[in-house]
Amino acid sequence: MKRFVDLGDFSREEVLSLLELARRLEKQPEPHALAGKLMGLVFFNPSLRTLASFQAAMARLGGNSFVINPGQGSWQLETRIGVVMDGAAAEHVREGIPVLASYCDALGIRVFAEGKDLASDLAETTFNAMASLIDKPLVNLESAVNHPCQALADWKTLDDLAVPRGGRLVLSWAYHPRALPLAVPAAALHMAALRGMEVIVLRPEGFALPAAIMERARRAAAASGGSVRETAERAEALEGADVLYVKEWGATDGYGDVAADRARRAALTAWCVREDWFAAAPECRVMHCLPVRRNTAIADEVLDGARSAVQREAYNRLPVQMAVLHQLLRS
Amino acid sequence: MKRFVDLGDFSREEVLSLLELARRLEKQPEPHALAGKLMGLVFFNPSLRTLASFQAAMARLGGNSFVINPGQGSWQLETRIGVVMDGAAAEHVREGIPVLASYCDALGIRVFAEGKDLASDLAETTFNAMASLIDKPLVNLESAVNHPCQALADWKTLDDLAVPRGGRLVLSWAYHPRALPLAVPAAALHMAALRGMEVIVLRPEGFALPAAIMERARRAAAASGGSVRETAERAEALEGADVLYVKEWGATDGYGDVAADRARRAALTAWCVREDWFAAAPECRVMHCLPVRRNTAIADEVLDGARSAVQREAYNRLPVQMAVLHQLLRS
Amino acid sequence: MKRFVDLGDFSREEVLSLLELARRLEKQPEPHALAGKLMGLVFFNPSLRTLASFQAAMARLGGNSFVINPGQGSWQLETRIGVVMDGAAAEHVREGIPVLASYCDALGIRVFAEGKDLASDLAETTFNAMASLIDKPLVNLESAVNHPCQALADWKTLDDLAVPRGGRLVLSWAYHPRALPLAVPAAALHMAALRGMEVIVLRPEGFALPAAIMERARRAAAASGGSVRETAERAEALEGADVLYVKEWGATDGYGDVAADRARRAALTAWCVREDWFAAAPECRVMHCLPVRRNTAIADEVLDGARSAVQREAYNRLPVQMAVLHQLLRS
Repeated sequence: MKRFVDLGDFSREEVLSLLELARRLEKQPEPHALAGKLMGLVFFNPSLRTLASFQAAMARLGGNSFVINPGQGSWQLETRIGVVMDGAAAEHVREGIPVLASYCDALGIRVFAEGKDLASDLAETTFNAMASLIDKPLVNLESAVNHPCQALADWKTLDDLAVPRGGRLVLSWAYHPRALPLAVPAAALHMAALRGMEVIVLRPEGFALPAAIMERARRAAAASGGSVRETAERAEALEGADVLYVKEWGATDGYGDVAADRARRAALTAWCVREDWFAAAPECRVMHCLPVRRNTAIADEVLDGARSAVQREAYNRLPVQMAVLHQLLRS
Repeated sequence: MKRFVDLGDFSREEVLSLLELARRLEKQPEPHALAGKLMGLVFFNPSLRTLASFQAAMARLGGNSFVINPGQGSWQLETRIGVVMDGAAAEHVREGIPVLASYCDALGIRVFAEGKDLASDLAETTFNAMASLIDKPLVNLESAVNHPCQALADWKTLDDLAVPRGGRLVLSWAYHPRALPLAVPAAALHMAALRGMEVIVLRPEGFALPAAIMERARRAAAASGGSVRETAERAEALEGADVLYVKEWGATDGYGDVAADRARRAALTAWCVREDWFAAAPECRVMHCLPVRRNTAIADEVLDGARSAVQREAYNRLPVQMAVLHQLLRS
Repeated sequence: MKRFVDLGDFSREEVLSLLELARRLEKQPEPHALAGKLMGLVFFNPSLRTLASFQAAMARLGGNSFVINPGQGSWQLETRIGVVMDGAAAEHVREGIPVLASYCDALGIRVFAEGKDLASDLAETTFNAMASLIDKPLVNLESAVNHPCQALADWKTLDDLAVPRGGRLVLSWAYHPRALPLAVPAAALHMAALRGMEVIVLRPEGFALPAAIMERARRAAAASGGSVRETAERAEALEGADVLYVKEWGATDGYGDVAADRARRAALTAWCVREDWFAAAPECRVMHCLPVRRNTAIADEVLDGARSAVQREAYNRLPVQMAVLHQLLRS
């Protein structure tokens, strides 16, 4: 494995093999597996789990890491091509990223969607421009429309919870004061489809996931025996659901139009997950990648209750990333 | 030992045993004692000594650490219970803290007093709410009214300076432009009392330490053969003193009333420690936990003179924390 | 070696020996050479290469490091002597720097020029005040008018590029929206002179390097068989040049006068390095310490072309710093 930037680059079998390695490393630590190896972690955007768990994963395997936050202690980095750099950014990623890669054995990069032009975000323009600059092992720490580490941790969580391969997973939009990126819903949708699940995307009007994302998930589902559909009807979607995967994202009808998004979401504060959502799905577990706004996206009663799997999900970032790093840096 | 959150959780003998271990580790390094161990360090507030010395302590013992600064590179964390999170904080400590704990073998948390409600700060509401969420070894990196690592380093410093067990320690208020928390004066007072010293709290009117803090110190003194009293008369307090422990803190008469505190302290700029304070205590040493504002709380002449022990005190953070980590992670 | 703060502290032979060690460590890694060693890295100013490469260098040699950014997660540090600290800074370097040194085996400090008083900056007032406080091994991570790690990496780069000892190196001023410090041009000039090169400083009127810096370089050149001169005529300087070393810096005619500097540089935007500069020096390589503003100081066509050596230069920070640390912490 040379890169871990998209779960879609791997076959179902390759993913299962990564998960098997993750479970093995959970049980049989390998504290010297990556002795002498060094990972650089570049965060253009905030992080808690990714920031902590990648440092932890390298340390747990005997390696080391360093963290760069452009603009905080380090130079603000320009990402646009061909620009005359007379503004705030002191350095271009075309210099900064290869330089950082030259100091380490693997690089991780987080860069969120710009949220202005859907085609550009779907094309992963910014992440791919950086990825093309280096040939060291590379990990996507969350890009415009992808978050493969989260998706892999989610898959392991579904296994840990003994959710059947063909179980029903409802990926539900939830309220948030601002428009958030599509990375996690896109990655979770694809993951569940690739796992072979019956996936229902539950979202209000104006928040349908882009056609390219839906289509990609349908292809994965077709190959794995699963299915993908979408609806705005909560009761129907949740009936008998095994898992409610909650996520906030921005309006796609008028992508990047901040005012329109705000107007739309102002009417949707009822999309806060509460216990009464589960009347027809009493065993349904709740997943969320975190961070989550309590009583805004999910109510306290759900997060503090027995159906919440968010802690397991977050913890699983560690073993799956150890498996990814093991594959990237040992082979 | 499962937690190091309050020196008051330990008997005098247990503290002496920790200090003995600290001295042993100073002389006989154990560079592999914590091999494979990982500590997460969460700072809700700024730090220099704690930030550097805990990373150093883990490294010196062969372990690793990572640092999280909520709101700086990482999400701003909400601490209030039951709140509707539609403000600046993207995540609640109820998620964030257990997640971080799940990645490491020990967690350290720094969270200063809110400085609004004395009862809430005395109850360590915020720190305890986080502490209750995890069952991993936990270290208090400074909470609302406690700083046990500083207190332990101070005790070792008193020993290093050969200050007699029953010597006189004057804990003196000093001027600072703003109201600072009670954590260090409370911890230093309790430490000196538990060590068995004659402790005098020297403070202007309006700055008396809260009754609960004084009472707790008196109990510790009673059990250890020491004593605790308070005064506003500097000359009397300092006569024959062995140690002047200097610290700035906010007005307690009207706790949390910023304007009242400011008015009160404006008249107290003479509470800057100068050489002429020591006319009747020529051998008196000066301690301060740092950071200290020069020529505001303590004059250059004192900090740069022979009676200053602040460097020894700061250095001692390293060996005592190594001892704490050794106890937390080896047993 | 006790300190690495100025390349001028070392003879030409000592520098050559450091470079030989750097090349050896490149080929034969020593992953345990600094086992148990700890470096503290203090950055008063932003960094990318230095920040990442020193952490990498310690890790590559089996050691550890921690990073302190005063004012970001750590207290803002006062550097002025004798001041009454009633402003923003909570701590003085007179406390903070020795404390940090006491936790580690070597300390690195970055503190840029104040850019107000030339004599003070030339005297390295701020850096030297800190350096005088500690006796642990110390590394200059860039001070007011020096950057020895960059200079050493540049020397290695010249060797890697097989630039002859007596080759022509043109140190050219380039446009930048703001006045930048003299550290890199001063260090590069001295390095090239000490290497024995024919050095030409190419700069517009008002931007001549200070006499003390020029004089020092002339002495180094005299001892090494090189030469140093300056001009404002680009065509003449570049004719047959082996290397164009590009750097932005502030006006020295009226040092510290921001308005005058701005007025002067507004007319100099043509000092952006483009391919047509090299008509009479087709084989000329381009060096720059980075960060560089694309299409402001150097055009895309040059940075992305075959004559650019900036990546090699940045990468070389790692092996030369490994050599420096090896010398500081092994002997």
